[in-house]
Amino acid sequence: MALGGNALLKRGEPMTAEAQHTNVRIAAAALADIARDHELIVAHGNGPQVGLMALHAATFAPDNPWPLDVLGAETEGMIGYLIEQELMNALPTGTDCATLLTRVEVDPLDPAFDQPTKPIGPVYTAEEAKLVRAEHRWSMVEEAKGGLRRVVPSPLPTAILNIAPIRLLVQAGVCVICAGGGGIPVLRRKDGKMEGVEAVIDKDRTSALLAIALEADILLMLTDVASVFRDWGEADQTAIDQITPAALQAMHFAEGSMGPKISAACDFVAAGGMMAGIGRLQDARAIVEGRAGTQVRLSQVMVGTGTVPVSV
Amino acid sequence: MALGGNALLKRGEPMTAEAQHTNVRIAAAALADIARDHELIVAHGNGPQVGLMALHAATFAPDNPWPLDVLGAETEGMIGYLIEQELMNALPTGTDCATLLTRVEVDPLDPAFDQPTKPIGPVYTAEEAKLVRAEHRWSMVEEAKGGLRRVVPSPLPTAILNIAPIRLLVQAGVCVICAGGGGIPVLRRKDGKMEGVEAVIDKDRTSALLAIALEADILLMLTDVASVFRDWGEADQTAIDQITPAALQAMHFAEGSMGPKISAACDFVAAGGMMAGIGRLQDARAIVEGRAGTQVRLSQVMVGTGTVPVSV
Repeated sequence: MALGGNALLKRGEPMTAEAQHTNVRIAAAALADIARDHELIVAHGNGPQVGLMALHAATFAPDNPWPLDVLGAETEGMIGYLIEQELMNALPTGTDCATLLTRVEVDPLDPAFDQPTKPIGPVYTAEEAKLVRAEHRWSMVEEAKGGLRRVVPSPLPTAILNIAPIRLLVQAGVCVICAGGGGIPVLRRKDGKMEGVEAVIDKDRTSALLAIALEADILLMLTDVASVFRDWGEADQTAIDQITPAALQAMHFAEGSMGPKISAACDFVAAGGMMAGIGRLQDARAIVEGRAGTQVRLSQVMVGTGTVPVSV
Repeated sequence: MALGGNALLKRGEPMTAEAQHTNVRIAAAALADIARDHELIVAHGNGPQVGLMALHAATFAPDNPWPLDVLGAETEGMIGYLIEQELMNALPTGTDCATLLTRVEVDPLDPAFDQPTKPIGPVYTAEEAKLVRAEHRWSMVEEAKGGLRRVVPSPLPTAILNIAPIRLLVQAGVCVICAGGGGIPVLRRKDGKMEGVEAVIDKDRTSALLAIALEADILLMLTDVASVFRDWGEADQTAIDQITPAALQAMHFAEGSMGPKISAACDFVAAGGMMAGIGRLQDARAIVEGRAGTQVRLSQVMVGTGTVPVSV
């Protein structure tokens, strides 16, 4: 299950400890519900959090701002702890849970390094954005929903470096929280050693890689939209219940948060995954059972008592 | 191995990413040297880091400062990542390593909550301290080496909540980094659920608890002093090579960083641990081999070719 940053902090909500606690408690109830019937591995976003931390760090030490790999690691600690605590509070006593820091390799030649696309941190007014841009020399883009945000490079994940311990724990029945914020971005130097890099990896892309590596049956990407829509934003937009990767790839989706989800879903199913689901956090169980959200899978499936043809 | 905060950031050194990278690289070389002959579990302090983060958070959101449990989790992410990366760079290819967030239970009735003793964050001049105290209403104490620091409650750890996954990984030969900053302090509410609490647990105390739970042979506490000294600070101070817990407990040590180390060493050996060692990071191997630092153990041991009586 990949939890969107919006599942942890609603759009426009101030990033207080209290707000995150409340949201995480709601998310944990949905996760615990799934954990009753499934082995659960949880990944999560960190867009609002890593951006705010970067802003704090850059303000306090403008000459020595903390790099995004280190800030990403901080968010894995912060968000991972909040999820672990509330998830264990929601799960039956005796369930084991572990939160692992996760370094994820990226390609130093990934074109994303020359073209920042991932929005992080607060939404600014045009006036605020001007000041922030001048002070920190950050790239900014306009948001579809209004306002501006900082954007940073978002290279594709190529390998999860800590996969062996994650696999060990999952096989032992431990509920694992990992790959927070898409993982801590690192690259391999020419001498073979790893080092951090200024980027934020898309957490849906990393979740697909993780789900493939662990041979998961289902990849659920949970956000604040109900499903994938055909003709999104137009008068006749229609929710897609079930679709094949081929049909999905033939459609056009705007860049932003839905694009990576669709790529991740297609990659996962193409690699042998049974089903990738996209929808709202509170619908998690319903998405798994085909009663809500969008199911991406190769062929038609049984839902309830009847055979439902795949919508293509 | 419990790494002191000073092993990660030297006293007075500014907390830049660069400074921490450099120090962690040095620490990783010492850790890797030990890992060649031993199963390695690494804990670390977070005093300078958690204090600085608290200062940033309190400055940005004075009405909603982030609590110390969440900030502690952030430091587990940040420091854990830096150690894991450099340690894996230093270890032979194929060695598995995992960094786990670690929640540690404390007693809500611990008297430490009424008497803050743990110094965190930057060292202030008297003038600066006055401003900081007025702004954030923090308790401050004078440092033995000059200046003032914020102090926070440091309750005793009573249980490591994530011990099962840690044990699984250690048994599978994975090098585990955990219990950073003494662990994330949490307490059990009357309804049985866990919640975070404003405190910083002593990492040596937690390391002893961890070493006992994992039935470790050796607990090494590494810092920037060469060993435990008899009559510390006096003209005739003498380094202690080997000592029993009983003899150590009969001596007097000032509160501060050595007190918890000595309690941790005594607890570990009393619970069946073979040896607790205290000394400098760069002497790690020498301390294990009895050639440097202070060894705390129950009875006399062989060092090199001769029998060395325990110094009592």
